[in-house]
Amino acid sequence: MTYTVEIKVMPLKELLDPQGKAVMGGLANLGLGGVEDVRIGKNITLQVNAGSPEQAKQIAEEASRKLLTNPVMEYFEVSVN
Amino acid sequence: MTYTVEIKVMPLKELLDPQGKAVMGGLANLGLGGVEDVRIGKNITLQVNAGSPEQAKQIAEEASRKLLTNPVMEYFEVSVN
Repeated sequence: MTYTVEIKVMPLKELLDPQGKAVMGGLANLGLGGVEDVRIGKNITLQVNAGSPEQAKQIAEEASRKLLTNPVMEYFEVSVN
Repeated sequence: MTYTVEIKVMPLKELLDPQGKAVMGGLANLGLGGVEDVRIGKNITLQVNAGSPEQAKQIAEEASRKLLTNPVMEYFEVSVN
């Protein structure tokens, strides 16, 4: 069966996110007040063919560790729909 | 009050996603079978100071339309936590 797996990859909370800071400046210039912090990461949607949701999640976690994330700068969260 | 708003920005389903195709090739090279499709987008987390969750969502949607997404190539989903 094919499962849809979502992987959220975000910059570690301890690190500065320069892209997010730039967007925050842009929002302020557009007059959009109220935004206090912006962090930008990746969202990766996989279609995984696996025997169970657990196996699909395992494949996605392995993909995250081996290719999709840089553990020095990013963390990831996997969810199976 | 400060609300955490997540904005998911993904390439439109009708369009080819070259970045996703490249990642799919990379996963196949790593021997990670079972992945049938990959699509890559952005995940943006905002901290919004607003009077209600509805108002926070409205601010995030306006930010998405005005700055964060390109409607020709991307769609977005906003969720307030």
